[in-house]
Amino acid sequence: MKIAIYGYGNLGRGVEYAVRQNPDTELFGVFTRRPPETVRTAFSETKVLPAADVTRYKDDIDVLIICGGSATDLPKMTPALAADFNVIDSFDTHADIPRHFAAVDEAARKGGKIGVISVGWDPGMFSLNRLYANAILPDGKDYTFWGKGVSQGHSDAIRRIEGVLDARQYTIPVQSALDSVRAGENPELTTREKHTRLCYVVAAENADKSRIEKEIVTMPKYFSDYDTTVNFISQEELDRDHKGIPHGGFVIRTGKTGESNTNGHVIEYSLKLDSNPEFTASVLVAYARAAFRMAGRGDCGCKTVFDIAPVDLSLRTREQVIAEML
Amino acid sequence: MKIAIYGYGNLGRGVEYAVRQNPDTELFGVFTRRPPETVRTAFSETKVLPAADVTRYKDDIDVLIICGGSATDLPKMTPALAADFNVIDSFDTHADIPRHFAAVDEAARKGGKIGVISVGWDPGMFSLNRLYANAILPDGKDYTFWGKGVSQGHSDAIRRIEGVLDARQYTIPVQSALDSVRAGENPELTTREKHTRLCYVVAAENADKSRIEKEIVTMPKYFSDYDTTVNFISQEELDRDHKGIPHGGFVIRTGKTGESNTNGHVIEYSLKLDSNPEFTASVLVAYARAAFRMAGRGDCGCKTVFDIAPVDLSLRTREQVIAEML
Repeated sequence: MKIAIYGYGNLGRGVEYAVRQNPDTELFGVFTRRPPETVRTAFSETKVLPAADVTRYKDDIDVLIICGGSATDLPKMTPALAADFNVIDSFDTHADIPRHFAAVDEAARKGGKIGVISVGWDPGMFSLNRLYANAILPDGKDYTFWGKGVSQGHSDAIRRIEGVLDARQYTIPVQSALDSVRAGENPELTTREKHTRLCYVVAAENADKSRIEKEIVTMPKYFSDYDTTVNFISQEELDRDHKGIPHGGFVIRTGKTGESNTNGHVIEYSLKLDSNPEFTASVLVAYARAAFRMAGRGDCGCKTVFDIAPVDLSLRTREQVIAEML
Repeated sequence: MKIAIYGYGNLGRGVEYAVRQNPDTELFGVFTRRPPETVRTAFSETKVLPAADVTRYKDDIDVLIICGGSATDLPKMTPALAADFNVIDSFDTHADIPRHFAAVDEAARKGGKIGVISVGWDPGMFSLNRLYANAILPDGKDYTFWGKGVSQGHSDAIRRIEGVLDARQYTIPVQSALDSVRAGENPELTTREKHTRLCYVVAAENADKSRIEKEIVTMPKYFSDYDTTVNFISQEELDRDHKGIPHGGFVIRTGKTGESNTNGHVIEYSLKLDSNPEFTASVLVAYARAAFRMAGRGDCGCKTVFDIAPVDLSLRTREQVIAEML
């Protein structure tokens, strides 16, 4: 199965690594909108080609993994490419998913291709676990917690404040809230009760740190609804201690069954990831395998993680998974 | 969707409760090999019919949930019924699954029906999570821990010892082993290092308790490979404190990605269940929905949780799950 990467940043690099871990996948190359010679890939043998030429290679590529941003790239790229390629993306603007689905579905059906959207861990594995848990326990309550992990959006918001040179923001789930959920107490949790925000900020030499701190903690939408801690550190400390892109979280459903609903159950799925983009990339490659298999059976149109039978993700055959994993 | 229960014990009763929680399912009735008038169902209006008559009702039942034991009942029942009904079972003898699959597949294909086998939590939801996690992290290691929960098989083994009137055995995962796995230490764990066994035993009045304890802790296969604690209690205490059938467990996969595999990831799925049979029954009813939908599309043959697209389990439509749960 020949995979190509369309767009090369942290996520594209993650796909480049993931393809190496899967014996049935091979990397055709990377497509970029930048001058190809300026792109430094993880492996020197990876071919880098201009994005504008991608359709020239439509017969050489089994699945194209689109590694663009959800805000402006993917809403255009995925429908445009789905007519010519089996595609996978990690579109994560939850509210706009139905519109994105419709656009990709139309293009993919026209071309007789498969387009799998919103693949990753949230949306993706977290969504799957919400669906499974809801189907099993119809009488229950869902909780999702994120972290401990780096939020790129919040880090960027801090960097836009005057006097800030660099910043890194961690989203942290509140342990007591997690404990209460797991104990089946069905708490109603406010935004503030679920997560705290921890910021590491590099300020310019003469910047007013108390003003910066105030601007952070009172920033609407991003910070004002949370208990936020701001730590000023040096650029060296930030580079040394906060270079990684960890993330993760918890999807929990609690529910009741039986006579007068007396028996409680807790279903919990959690992720603890050293690298958010590398893990997301690994999920993308597994779903690329499924897309390739579905296309091989003549299926087409837009798909989500909900539509894909688990067996299609596995490196092993159906007989093997039944004998070895069931 | 009309569901019938074939075989009525704790699991059948769990299905009777679960059907009430799902607005799209209705209970046709219970089939039993016992004299129907001796079966006390959870709800007085539940119809109880002789198992021998079940095929008379083949046009009235959409899915038959077979609630028999894996040792002797299901290997015969499921293939025999799969020719006339869409069926679901919870066959859990892992080593015999391929043989059971083949027998159910042949019968179901002959009748143009769907037979879903080995549905529940292990096999079932645990199997699914092993498959998903392996597909995402091909370079990693799997761990499954069970408990804290009641093992019926181990409780029965204790009851067969001379001088034992009643017993309840709990399987308990070793916390330090769980912690080591979660920390990504990839430990090689022996049987003894993963689980301990805790037994509550009611002894006959003049029984030799030290002999009973010795017989338990040295019992091959069941206890000799574990650190086992034996507590003697009264029948009243057993009935008061150990009547429930809780269970649960943990499926964990740890893996590495990236340059020189430096980034570690932990995927964890866990269940904490007040009632093992009621939870299993809830999973069975969700898969009954999927079987009904698959049969409606003209599909047939034996299926496992690996073959079933998640969307087919949901009470909601495809459009709803994409808009609300992705």
